[in-house]
Amino acid sequence: MSASPAVRNAAADRPVNFSAGPAILPLEVLEEAARGVIALDGIGLSVMEISHRSAAFETIYERAHEGLKRLLRVPDTHEVLFLQGGARGQFAQVPLNFLKQGQTARFVVSGYWAQGALEEAATLGQAEALVSSEDRQFAELPSLDGVDIPKGTAYVHTTSNNTLYGTQWPQMPSFGPDVRHVCDMSSDILSRPIDVSDYALIYAGAQKNAGPSGITIVIVDKQWMAEGRQDIPKIWRYDVMAKNQSMYNTPPTFAIYCVDLVAQWLEGLGGLDAIAERNETKARLLYDAIDGSGGFYRGTVTRPEHRSRMTVTYRLPSEQLDKQFVAESAGQGLVGLKGHRAVGGIRASIYNAMDVAGVERLVDFMQDFARRHG
Amino acid sequence: MSASPAVRNAAADRPVNFSAGPAILPLEVLEEAARGVIALDGIGLSVMEISHRSAAFETIYERAHEGLKRLLRVPDTHEVLFLQGGARGQFAQVPLNFLKQGQTARFVVSGYWAQGALEEAATLGQAEALVSSEDRQFAELPSLDGVDIPKGTAYVHTTSNNTLYGTQWPQMPSFGPDVRHVCDMSSDILSRPIDVSDYALIYAGAQKNAGPSGITIVIVDKQWMAEGRQDIPKIWRYDVMAKNQSMYNTPPTFAIYCVDLVAQWLEGLGGLDAIAERNETKARLLYDAIDGSGGFYRGTVTRPEHRSRMTVTYRLPSEQLDKQFVAESAGQGLVGLKGHRAVGGIRASIYNAMDVAGVERLVDFMQDFARRHG
Repeated sequence: MSASPAVRNAAADRPVNFSAGPAILPLEVLEEAARGVIALDGIGLSVMEISHRSAAFETIYERAHEGLKRLLRVPDTHEVLFLQGGARGQFAQVPLNFLKQGQTARFVVSGYWAQGALEEAATLGQAEALVSSEDRQFAELPSLDGVDIPKGTAYVHTTSNNTLYGTQWPQMPSFGPDVRHVCDMSSDILSRPIDVSDYALIYAGAQKNAGPSGITIVIVDKQWMAEGRQDIPKIWRYDVMAKNQSMYNTPPTFAIYCVDLVAQWLEGLGGLDAIAERNETKARLLYDAIDGSGGFYRGTVTRPEHRSRMTVTYRLPSEQLDKQFVAESAGQGLVGLKGHRAVGGIRASIYNAMDVAGVERLVDFMQDFARRHG
Repeated sequence: MSASPAVRNAAADRPVNFSAGPAILPLEVLEEAARGVIALDGIGLSVMEISHRSAAFETIYERAHEGLKRLLRVPDTHEVLFLQGGARGQFAQVPLNFLKQGQTARFVVSGYWAQGALEEAATLGQAEALVSSEDRQFAELPSLDGVDIPKGTAYVHTTSNNTLYGTQWPQMPSFGPDVRHVCDMSSDILSRPIDVSDYALIYAGAQKNAGPSGITIVIVDKQWMAEGRQDIPKIWRYDVMAKNQSMYNTPPTFAIYCVDLVAQWLEGLGGLDAIAERNETKARLLYDAIDGSGGFYRGTVTRPEHRSRMTVTYRLPSEQLDKQFVAESAGQGLVGLKGHRAVGGIRASIYNAMDVAGVERLVDFMQDFARRHG
């Protein structure tokens, strides 16, 4: 896919979308998806109207599956699944499969979503915080210095990026080969290279970097998967899903089609190394604008190395100015900048599909706003 | 929505889609959905790119929700939810919420999907067949004559239409006010009026009559819902979903948008009375063609009153001719007619979006094929 002149014209008129999720998608992907909604080439029917067992859909499925495997360099030890239910579904499905009697699931509590994952696991078994930065209002990541993983730990759960608090692990913590590491990568999957072999299981709701809402990407160690409980409903068993190419039930076909288009778009851009560099550039532009504002804008993250390259959170001198900033920016076609209702402030989500020009428009607006109100 | 000349032209070129699901959708719905994939009017962003908590999406959600309530005449005693995971998800979620210690879930086993529902429930508690027509290869519905519902029955589970075997309850069985009736209506919801107050819970994967795959409609009695287990993961609790307008997690926003469009389309056609009449007409045309073929086509359902108005299953004189029928019909733009891999034969799924002209094209082909091969 390459941007046609028509796409470029359409892009110029579109608001710049900083929504936290469901979030911005590449316009080329949207244009192609819209064509598929009407009729797939050579089929003449909508991608939504064909059987998930048809040859046409199998091709789409395989391309999405292989595309993700290439992009994330998924080793043969791991399986890629397309499930439903989002990250919150995984909050329950992971412990249902893997948290057994006598074991404890341990959580690196770095924010709101990690807390949610811990709470769901606790309905199914023994679950507790390994470390937490709640006492610092999650304005930084919890320290793992000197932390030992107790025996009897079923797995350690982390959250790679925190969409409320604007923190992100600069490099994901590693717990060694003897500890099962489960990671919620919903808000930064596909934004940078990762080493999949470090993880027992990775999950991500697609609606930030990988596609629309309604599809969940799961990457699971095959050996661990085989050790999962088999006395639970089949629909919630990873091994059953893997044996059925994620089609034990009817999959969300249109969403898989969109993931395929996003993967193709990412490969066209040069893959995860290239997008990571672009994401660094975008984040640097924004943090420079914050840090260079003479204190008018204040980042919410206390340790610069914990600042997220996906979720840039900051505040203005007053809540009144926060509100005015959100209203005025929207008037200028910069939308979705209001912080999460639980924390307030400003949140600029700059996922993969946001280009540098979009961030530059925000920076220009920030400088102008600060001049007028500073 | 009304069909524009462009839509009518596009329709003439499209294959006639008899797929069992994901299945045919109205072309007007697809055209509108494709526009929404690019940009919603007045928003300028894709329906897939906006927050589920935005005013724009709330409008879509409310319209879909109210549209379904009007179409199905849902009383205030019942809640309409939009969930993920399909019917197979409900096979597990219903017993997880409602099948308690000391109780038994009882199943009217009328086919493959009912068996699946029973098997999943049995992983979570006591579950057994109330009646079954397995001994008649599901070629008719099980008889409920003289069947009493034992004490300690958590609920009775039925399947309204059977997509493998081509049976459908002409009228749904009623078990009286003291029995909780749970019904899987995946393959005939919205095809005819129903009395929602007869049911404790109705569920339906959307991908036949209501929208794309990846969204599940659940209609649940509020009082029963409040009696559900609260010690299970929140993501699987109906009451938590209801309290959060189905947005305890990020919902499948695009799929909800499509359900909204389908509901508008149905209301434009005159609602469920009108579509039921059209569905009767379509089914009659096909069954007349089968019965009038001098035995060349043989319906698989043994009792005519159990024949489905959604799923018309029949066989030709040999498997070889079945195959030839499927291949030749596809060559003439009649697609998706191959029977389910578990049973073979021919299956014409004639869901709501199939118009009478589409069925007439199939009937013409059948008569021509019989003349040439009879």
